[in-house]
Amino acid sequence: MSPESGTLLASIDSPADLKKLREEDLPVLCDEIRQFIIDVISANPGHLAASLGAVELAVAIHYVFDTPNDKLIWDVGHQAYAHKIITGRKEKFHTNRKHKGISGFPSMKESEYDAFGTGHSSTSISAALGMAVASALMDKNGRQHIAVIGDGSMTGGMAMEAINNAGVTKANLLVILNDNKIAIDKNVGALKEYLVDITTSRSYNKLKDFVWKLMGGDTRYGSNSRAIVKQVGNAVKSTILKKSNLFEAFNFRYFGPTDGHDVIRLVKLLRDLSRIPGPKLLHVVTKKGKGLESAEKEPTTYHSPGVFDRKTGKIKESECTEKLPPKFQNVFGKTIIELAKENDKIVGITPAMSTGSSLNMMMQVMPERAFDVGIAEQHAVTFAAGMAAQGMIPFCNIYSTFMQRAYDQVIHDVALQNLHVVFCLDRGGLVGEDGATHHGAFDMAYLRAIPGITIAAPLNEEELRNMMYTAQLPGSGTFSIRYPRGRGFLSEWKTDFKKLEIGKGQKLRDGKDIAIISIGIVGNFAMEAATQLEKEEIETAIYDMRFLKPIDEEILHQVFKNHKKIITVEDGTITGGLGSAVIEFKNEYNYSVTVKRLGIPDKFIAQGTPEELYHICGYDADGIKKAVLEII
Amino acid sequence: MSPESGTLLASIDSPADLKKLREEDLPVLCDEIRQFIIDVISANPGHLAASLGAVELAVAIHYVFDTPNDKLIWDVGHQAYAHKIITGRKEKFHTNRKHKGISGFPSMKESEYDAFGTGHSSTSISAALGMAVASALMDKNGRQHIAVIGDGSMTGGMAMEAINNAGVTKANLLVILNDNKIAIDKNVGALKEYLVDITTSRSYNKLKDFVWKLMGGDTRYGSNSRAIVKQVGNAVKSTILKKSNLFEAFNFRYFGPTDGHDVIRLVKLLRDLSRIPGPKLLHVVTKKGKGLESAEKEPTTYHSPGVFDRKTGKIKESECTEKLPPKFQNVFGKTIIELAKENDKIVGITPAMSTGSSLNMMMQVMPERAFDVGIAEQHAVTFAAGMAAQGMIPFCNIYSTFMQRAYDQVIHDVALQNLHVVFCLDRGGLVGEDGATHHGAFDMAYLRAIPGITIAAPLNEEELRNMMYTAQLPGSGTFSIRYPRGRGFLSEWKTDFKKLEIGKGQKLRDGKDIAIISIGIVGNFAMEAATQLEKEEIETAIYDMRFLKPIDEEILHQVFKNHKKIITVEDGTITGGLGSAVIEFKNEYNYSVTVKRLGIPDKFIAQGTPEELYHICGYDADGIKKAVLEII
Repeated sequence: MSPESGTLLASIDSPADLKKLREEDLPVLCDEIRQFIIDVISANPGHLAASLGAVELAVAIHYVFDTPNDKLIWDVGHQAYAHKIITGRKEKFHTNRKHKGISGFPSMKESEYDAFGTGHSSTSISAALGMAVASALMDKNGRQHIAVIGDGSMTGGMAMEAINNAGVTKANLLVILNDNKIAIDKNVGALKEYLVDITTSRSYNKLKDFVWKLMGGDTRYGSNSRAIVKQVGNAVKSTILKKSNLFEAFNFRYFGPTDGHDVIRLVKLLRDLSRIPGPKLLHVVTKKGKGLESAEKEPTTYHSPGVFDRKTGKIKESECTEKLPPKFQNVFGKTIIELAKENDKIVGITPAMSTGSSLNMMMQVMPERAFDVGIAEQHAVTFAAGMAAQGMIPFCNIYSTFMQRAYDQVIHDVALQNLHVVFCLDRGGLVGEDGATHHGAFDMAYLRAIPGITIAAPLNEEELRNMMYTAQLPGSGTFSIRYPRGRGFLSEWKTDFKKLEIGKGQKLRDGKDIAIISIGIVGNFAMEAATQLEKEEIETAIYDMRFLKPIDEEILHQVFKNHKKIITVEDGTITGGLGSAVIEFKNEYNYSVTVKRLGIPDKFIAQGTPEELYHICGYDADGIKKAVLEII
Repeated sequence: MSPESGTLLASIDSPADLKKLREEDLPVLCDEIRQFIIDVISANPGHLAASLGAVELAVAIHYVFDTPNDKLIWDVGHQAYAHKIITGRKEKFHTNRKHKGISGFPSMKESEYDAFGTGHSSTSISAALGMAVASALMDKNGRQHIAVIGDGSMTGGMAMEAINNAGVTKANLLVILNDNKIAIDKNVGALKEYLVDITTSRSYNKLKDFVWKLMGGDTRYGSNSRAIVKQVGNAVKSTILKKSNLFEAFNFRYFGPTDGHDVIRLVKLLRDLSRIPGPKLLHVVTKKGKGLESAEKEPTTYHSPGVFDRKTGKIKESECTEKLPPKFQNVFGKTIIELAKENDKIVGITPAMSTGSSLNMMMQVMPERAFDVGIAEQHAVTFAAGMAAQGMIPFCNIYSTFMQRAYDQVIHDVALQNLHVVFCLDRGGLVGEDGATHHGAFDMAYLRAIPGITIAAPLNEEELRNMMYTAQLPGSGTFSIRYPRGRGFLSEWKTDFKKLEIGKGQKLRDGKDIAIISIGIVGNFAMEAATQLEKEEIETAIYDMRFLKPIDEEILHQVFKNHKKIITVEDGTITGGLGSAVIEFKNEYNYSVTVKRLGIPDKFIAQGTPEELYHICGYDADGIKKAVLEII
């Protein structure tokens, strides 16, 4: 899909082309890019609202700076579509997030204009600072280093770590704070309030102007004023002028706030800033979803809206969603409310994923017991630990891939302290279109090494409910439940709660020829494979372990005694997960049964639909069937 | 060991006893506690300087607040000795950090006064906020929640995440910023400079006073002044008074700075603060090492000085240290300088462990190429990634246990981006006296799950040098080298660099009866065991894998073909590490050899000497010998 011929965008294949335009043409180009994004994304689902808000930023930066020699890093990166479009990926843009297409995030492999690969939040300042320090060491002092970071990402601790470090360097670093008051959900926290404050009241700037006038002896103020100025002297200078702004407290020169949709003004500002050495921050105010009315009104819905009408913005629902099984996240969202109504110790916590995790349901019904703590995985886990130390039972919901951010806190602040926190790891396993940065590939392996933790993964929605029920019972200790992105398997899922025995699996199916040991939703793939294999007169037993840790040794003895061939299946990395646990058992008890392990292989997996990726990794029903036929 | 009878301290066994003292007696008590700490720690090595700086804080807090009902959390916790002494652990204090003694850190298991277990930095505000929110939910609104955090720990991202979150709550939270300008090494970063600024110039307070006077119409200023005030109006109020302080920007009420060694003033302040609701921060200025002259002068040396003279402070060196093998950290420190002199792409990075990692050596010789980024593991790794993206080769040195903090960054910002960063994981394996919070137990397991990373562990100092040499050669990719705390094994360690073949192990010893497969320093324990076993006519082959990933399949085939019994040994968790890798191999190739795995068992290991802990875990020479005899 290409832009209409005759448009300015049709002529832009690189920043060099962009630089040929006159400044006054830029607003038109921005409109065209915005429409192009809407046109393409309406038919090829992707992140929308964030990129609509950053069109002028992308255009102004590439217009002013000498990319790719100057280094530009987009924090998170799902707002970088305009950047991708003007850096040579216009024609491929419709392949965005598709298997073998372009990534939905910046990727160093994909383009020299993507100075750093992103996906997770709050990394850009660290990376840009590293590059800036490296440039100085390599005598490339003219090189500019730009990190564009949202106000949501700025709450992530590592962004503040980077600012603290940058402030004592002379790094040629420009941080552009893309302030739209929103992450995926509404941004929360004191920083956001602070930004609103300095943006809306403009008191900081008014005061700054005023004091400058005083210092310069503005004639409207008499000698008495100057006496006052003298008296406050250095106190005023250092406190009001240098330190009265949060970022200036960290030794950044602060500029703004300015309208992030006024591309001509942005160009002027960036030109000025490119001549100022050292760490500096430009505060830009933008509107998420800019240019599509429905997206401006509902930026959370339009964060990643799926297929929609390019004119009206109306989101096209699949025709029979009400008959489909529910999303796992909604089972979580509804179930935690049911449980919390019965058990007043239960609270819910999410680090800035209230919609994605469906904790927003609980936030509506019992706002005093459901907490969005901002993009702050580390804090979320230890905040949960603090609550648990007081006897509460927190359900801390974090996407599997983001839980990597809080690994130390799970070990050090929860498991070691033997606290009753329930981790719900949404988006466990291959997530599909978000690709390599977002797959929940590692959680089962990295959690399994932690002493004392219970690790569970449900076969379906009903098991998720029962696991959540079991996890909140007294004495359940540190408990982790991981489940995938997307829909489940059952239409009747809202069954009565049943306590599961911790560490006990279940037999799903009998069969004498081969046994499959699985955990989580892949048991359903195994069931499908078994049905197909039946037609070829192969009888497949299937065991759903339910718990990776403690693992059900009783069931494993049963399997190893009754079968000569075993296949393990998991929606996680083969290295260190269920397969490893099973062969550790096999080794421990000296079984000599053949075990084949299926799961995510030892490499990073790019984007595609979940089905495509399961197939590529060889553990969809087809892959399992093939493995059975090979091994038998 | 008890305090001298007749002293005030002799009468203090709990905060209740403390509360019986008159306020004016507190300075004397503080002196006695300080002397008691010096007396005990001089003979029983532990952390010293931090606790000497926090004596008055501990006394004042327990004097004013109703602990343990009020919750007190010491960030990191190695400054909490006075707290331990006045909360019932005076008599046991000499067992500090010893096997079966009291922990060197607060521990919930140990005392109800330890409201949260700590050890790693920057967790206290998150935990205290969790507790405060829980208290409010439980209608315990009178309960106070106090986090004492150093200026170093405050640079850790999760502390800022917690502050951002706390600022929008009404949590009954008091953060005491214990500002001594130092972490273990000198604190670095913009925040530290900011704190120096507001402490030394006192401009903030002067200005605040001045503006208050203006607003109140101080008679010294005429109507013209009031006109000015009127003009700036709300701008002044909101900007200078509310927002001109960093912490007030985050909605904390800020108090201080105040002298943290004036216990009577601290008591008054804390009483006042206990009546102010909501999040507040008291900025306390203390001197690390207070009361012991040499510790005040050299707080880094006296962070954990070992045995010293209780009168003079003189540290007692072991008598023949010059004949002992070097510490691994010093081999790192010296070797990186040698390598960096030859390869101008090499830089060194540490997150606030410059002395502990010995990167301080490089910081002295080539300060422009060695970076202490503050307590900021996440930033350290991604900062390294940014440098690597520009073609530099960063050696990023992080203790194994702290690398847990940057797990996501290793996956997402380095390995996935295929960047050439060399991670040096000091303190890998059991670290001894620091105990459960600090053991480097998990790194081999959690890193092994990451695609594309090379994981190495040296047998001795020479191998560490050669691994470092190999790691910096072009094309070596993401590379991790882990080595233990403490001294190595060789007196002649500074040999010429030799390139190691990545993924290749070595045979250390032939033997027909059994084979031991090891990685890292435990190979030396195996050698010792083999020598003992020889006397019992058991011939033990030993293979040092050198690389956990990629693992040397050639050598493993050799071992599995030639031996019927195999033992794996590693100084890391058995779950998911070398042993798992070896039996994954065994399973893959259908060997039916017996494999026994030695390593850290699946539980948290408390403190003790490394030798005691190796023995308890069963993989010192004795344990290996016993395992051989059992299996044969």
